[in-house]
Amino acid sequence: MATQTKPVLHGYFRSSCSWRVRIAFSLKGIEYDQVPVNLIKDGGQQMTEQYQELNPMKQVPAVEIDGITLSQSLAVIQYIDETRPGPRLLPADPKARAQVRMISDLIASGIQPLQNLYVLQKIGAEKAEWAQHFIHRGFQALEPILKKTSGKYCVGDEISMADICLVPQVYNAERFKVDVEQYPTIKRINETLLETEAFKVSHPSRQPDTPADLRA
Amino acid sequence: MATQTKPVLHGYFRSSCSWRVRIAFSLKGIEYDQVPVNLIKDGGQQMTEQYQELNPMKQVPAVEIDGITLSQSLAVIQYIDETRPGPRLLPADPKARAQVRMISDLIASGIQPLQNLYVLQKIGAEKAEWAQHFIHRGFQALEPILKKTSGKYCVGDEISMADICLVPQVYNAERFKVDVEQYPTIKRINETLLETEAFKVSHPSRQPDTPADLRA
Repeated sequence: MATQTKPVLHGYFRSSCSWRVRIAFSLKGIEYDQVPVNLIKDGGQQMTEQYQELNPMKQVPAVEIDGITLSQSLAVIQYIDETRPGPRLLPADPKARAQVRMISDLIASGIQPLQNLYVLQKIGAEKAEWAQHFIHRGFQALEPILKKTSGKYCVGDEISMADICLVPQVYNAERFKVDVEQYPTIKRINETLLETEAFKVSHPSRQPDTPADLRA
Repeated sequence: MATQTKPVLHGYFRSSCSWRVRIAFSLKGIEYDQVPVNLIKDGGQQMTEQYQELNPMKQVPAVEIDGITLSQSLAVIQYIDETRPGPRLLPADPKARAQVRMISDLIASGIQPLQNLYVLQKIGAEKAEWAQHFIHRGFQALEPILKKTSGKYCVGDEISMADICLVPQVYNAERFKVDVEQYPTIKRINETLLETEAFKVSHPSRQPDTPADLRA
């Protein structure tokens, strides 16, 4: 395995998909470099030709690792899991793995894409109501699923990719003033995870590009 | 492995995510039963309490397999791949696997969710323009990625989950009158795949619930 050079994460402190990757690196104990991509400044640094070479979707994250460039956070997380030692980010049992992927995709395909910056820009003035609507819709589905699959964490008692997706999504929900009290299982797991070191050090309030007024 | 009973796919002939699962079953040579869920009739059969037990997201597909119920097509496909013999749906090499997942997620998180029925219903009158916009946006990113990763298929010369995602997305694009000629690599791979048996038998024009006027 070629791990001579540290992976480079091109991300943004507040991007939920960048946070997912930071959590995965932290859980695995992998050192990495960060290159901030400011999604707002100058119309968005993700729009430059140079950045589009890394990720033609004009989104963060993009990760340079082992000589390849990967975008799409769940692809990155599973690549890290399959090539690095450390705690498993997906369980060994195929059914539990499937449940982890189901929950991860419910968030990554069913909720998050609808609050992406470029989608909200197209929605315009009603963007807060739009985001709230789809977060509630997703959480209403996620809550009964987690009631069945969860132990201490989303699937059983080990932290997994599903948890990596959950916490940044709850953070987004709170930004959009979604009342998470309605979803007691989501709320409980999120609070438990936020107490762990990997979720703390990767938090948007503690990144190199976090603006001073948002720093923890 | 408990494979005594055939898996049951709850799906809809024209749903691109249902088609993904049908392709995977066909590639693996797995017999399965289909239960049609008509997304349009009576306000949508996915809205019934009974169906929401299977998939609280009120979407197709839902798959009953080995005693569990899974939603989210990519979770289903990877579960099938990890538990069934037959051709691999993800390559053995970790970097190639990551590229397959990156392309799959670009489609499954970056394009498809924005044309989901419940999203288009919320958009209303401008839904065709909305869908076209986001399909073009995604294909503009996918085309240069495929130029790098593709051989005969999306990643090299073996059919993978990326191809399983590509063909139903191109089908959707054509429904929304997106000109695919602009994307020669996407077009070429799609045409090649449509000639294969697994993609033919799983096609929306050939399902038990395909209306007579849309049958091939």
